Amino acid sequence: MELKDAFSRVNAVSTDPDDLHTHGFSSNIYHPGALHSVIVYPESTEDVVKVVKIATKYRMPVVPYSGATSLEGHFRGHEVGGICVDLNRMDKIIQINEKDSDMVCQPAVRWMDINELLRDKGIPLFFPIDPGPGATIGGMLSTGCSGTNAVRYGTAKGEWFLNATVVLPSGEVIKTRRRSRKSAAGFDLTKLFIGAEGTLGIVTEVTIRLAPLLPTNVAVVHFLDVRAATEASIEIINQGAGIQCVELIDALSMKATNNYGKSKRKWQEKDSLFFKFQGPTDASLKETAQMVKKISEKHGSTGFALAKNQKEAEEIWTDRKNLYYSGLSLIPGSKGITTDVCVPISKLPDLIHETRKDLDSVGLVSPIIGHVGDGNFHALLLFKNDEEFKLAKEAVGRISRRAIELEGTCTGEHGVGIGKKEYLVEELGEGTVELMKTIKKAVDPLGLFNPGKLYPDRTRQEK
Amino acid sequence: MELKDAFSRVNAVSTDPDDLHTHGFSSNIYHPGALHSVIVYPESTEDVVKVVKIATKYRMPVVPYSGATSLEGHFRGHEVGGICVDLNRMDKIIQINEKDSDMVCQPAVRWMDINELLRDKGIPLFFPIDPGPGATIGGMLSTGCSGTNAVRYGTAKGEWFLNATVVLPSGEVIKTRRRSRKSAAGFDLTKLFIGAEGTLGIVTEVTIRLAPLLPTNVAVVHFLDVRAATEASIEIINQGAGIQCVELIDALSMKATNNYGKSKRKWQEKDSLFFKFQGPTDASLKETAQMVKKISEKHGSTGFALAKNQKEAEEIWTDRKNLYYSGLSLIPGSKGITTDVCVPISKLPDLIHETRKDLDSVGLVSPIIGHVGDGNFHALLLFKNDEEFKLAKEAVGRISRRAIELEGTCTGEHGVGIGKKEYLVEELGEGTVELMKTIKKAVDPLGLFNPGKLYPDRTRQEK
Repeated sequence: MELKDAFSRVNAVSTDPDDLHTHGFSSNIYHPGALHSVIVYPESTEDVVKVVKIATKYRMPVVPYSGATSLEGHFRGHEVGGICVDLNRMDKIIQINEKDSDMVCQPAVRWMDINELLRDKGIPLFFPIDPGPGATIGGMLSTGCSGTNAVRYGTAKGEWFLNATVVLPSGEVIKTRRRSRKSAAGFDLTKLFIGAEGTLGIVTEVTIRLAPLLPTNVAVVHFLDVRAATEASIEIINQGAGIQCVELIDALSMKATNNYGKSKRKWQEKDSLFFKFQGPTDASLKETAQMVKKISEKHGSTGFALAKNQKEAEEIWTDRKNLYYSGLSLIPGSKGITTDVCVPISKLPDLIHETRKDLDSVGLVSPIIGHVGDGNFHALLLFKNDEEFKLAKEAVGRISRRAIELEGTCTGEHGVGIGKKEYLVEELGEGTVELMKTIKKAVDPLGLFNPGKLYPDRTRQEK
Repeated sequence: MELKDAFSRVNAVSTDPDDLHTHGFSSNIYHPGALHSVIVYPESTEDVVKVVKIATKYRMPVVPYSGATSLEGHFRGHEVGGICVDLNRMDKIIQINEKDSDMVCQPAVRWMDINELLRDKGIPLFFPIDPGPGATIGGMLSTGCSGTNAVRYGTAKGEWFLNATVVLPSGEVIKTRRRSRKSAAGFDLTKLFIGAEGTLGIVTEVTIRLAPLLPTNVAVVHFLDVRAATEASIEIINQGAGIQCVELIDALSMKATNNYGKSKRKWQEKDSLFFKFQGPTDASLKETAQMVKKISEKHGSTGFALAKNQKEAEEIWTDRKNLYYSGLSLIPGSKGITTDVCVPISKLPDLIHETRKDLDSVGLVSPIIGHVGDGNFHALLLFKNDEEFKLAKEAVGRISRRAIELEGTCTGEHGVGIGKKEYLVEELGEGTVELMKTIKKAVDPLGLFNPGKLYPDRTRQEK
């Protein structure tokens, strides 16, 4: 086969059944799909160009793959087969420009590794976009992701990706922009690829912007209900307090944390806020803590707990990080579907209230955690059997539609992939989705790049 | 004419020569261009659709117009004539969502009016993108602009425009996204129109995000040279100090401020930094001031001057705001061309040094001010006659090319328009510019939307 000829290196091309299975499925994806025909492991932009040219010649689908942490089926194979481009050998950091607060790297570098490396080198900078552990820069760009730091730093759709080198479906290599922090030189092609989920090209190099690494501290405070917690969050943020994260952890999640047995604490099982403060000095961190305590109390909070030192801060934040696994522990042996709708913040209490009622009424156990500063929340819908799985899938549909009704989105963080395609026209309108397809057709006329993802199969279906 | 029939309102369509002149030229634009054939004043999205349909029928260029503050010829007429769509009657604020920190408005609303209105209503929020006075939301979106606040809040290419309602060249009306603060629902169509300079559609409604309005203070400090000032800026920002603006004002600009006669102060005529601090409390502002003073001194600064009260702060910042006019006053009766190149910050001192040498060697008087936190600066190239104008235009070319060589851009803020078209291929490469053109062709197949702007006429000219 031409791929093997083109890549004479050992292990550059694989059709091993185990490999094909790993690259086509994932333990937390519940979407239809198939196996890829072959996996290729490029080591350079030039290698990716070779793959794209062969794929074009044989009209084979091309699916990029790196961290494999996405949740909506982004890297599933296409039913006609195709080439999975596993970028994991392109995981080098090419340049760290400390004075410019930026870094040039390959797509398979993991954000957690970047931050660890900077810490080890004593460079007081970090990359603040923090989706799930294991996510890579290329995948993060392509999904338009975000995380707990978004309330302070925004998302992948902001200004953290300065430029991208992309292999287009034509095989041409472009660089979207230069390295300066700002540019008004024409429309923003970097942004074209952010959230395009590999459907417009394969990203092979990225310049990311880094933020100053500041001292932080952590606090937890409990509320009577989600509304009170949300109102407190809004007021705290609008006072300009130095908030890096503000996470809503609902009463059921607090219970799960206690049950899970890994916490150093016994938490009040109430709707709570987990705060990470940041500031240049101890004095500023203390000031923020006082401000948060005072405003929370105004909204009827109880039990404000401020970490006394770095160790306590890490312990508390670990409880936040463990929520996926502590949530699963509510029903031993269960699996979970994670939703990620997002609405204007003022509508978040209603949405969570309605969602909680809905999930209770169908008997689904579902802890809820929210990036409350952004109006975004995750419900972890637990299931143990096919019947419960069906209930959970249906509930995802209702949650998505409810968010859309409240001027929100079916996906605040995870992207469309296969799982959210059906909501896109409802959310954005036919014309908007058609415009996406127009651009897709112009850039990828053969439709070979990650086919079957992102774009609904039929847009104008009601007509 | 069909336009007059379609718009039976009084004064909705104008071919008055004075009107045509106002809409086709501007006192601070020095680019080729022509008059529009006719000016239309739509009052709604539906009106814009009507205009677009008529323009399509008669194959007439369509040029959107609102604040008319752009500097690169964005709203000049096309040589074959065409319709200028003056959006200034679409200047309503439709919705203020205080809890969500956002606002829905029409395109001709001015950012300064938004901030004044919020202040008058006692709503402690503001829109932080601050280009020249008079700029409108629609124009700011379309130019991908920024301003002095970018060091803290980023640019129009960040996450301040939540969605846009756009009339496409097809006449179809789309809304790019819903109102939630985050969305990962497909690629980011809002961003497609940011910086597209009216070439892909006409923006008729926008949702903008607002930021908490925080207490500020102002300080000025002087340095031995631009390098010392830049190094101090980098260190101050990386310490996480609460900096809203940090503006480099060079020695010549300081002299111009003294000469201009409107300042309350007699400034040291040295390369200086003007800071605007922000913080939730007086204590945090004081802390920032101390931090700035200390780090500046480490870099050899002199004469740290902190405003003692709000009145002094306003006086000092007015000196910063007056720099365009104080700069012009260096040569009475002169005009000026303003450049806006941007490079990675570490390269800013070299770029400014080379630029100063270059301008001195050809005898151009040119005060320089920089958004130093972003690596962006403006040189105001003064001229009084055709000969000096020619020298200034040539210098603009050299400055642009020098910035591109240093991994930067020919335009950090003002956009491409007519004035920067010739540098785009050099800056971005042929393939990147071709991709812009591919998208342009897909969205506007007849090429009627603001033709002759942004896209270089020939991309692959060397071949």
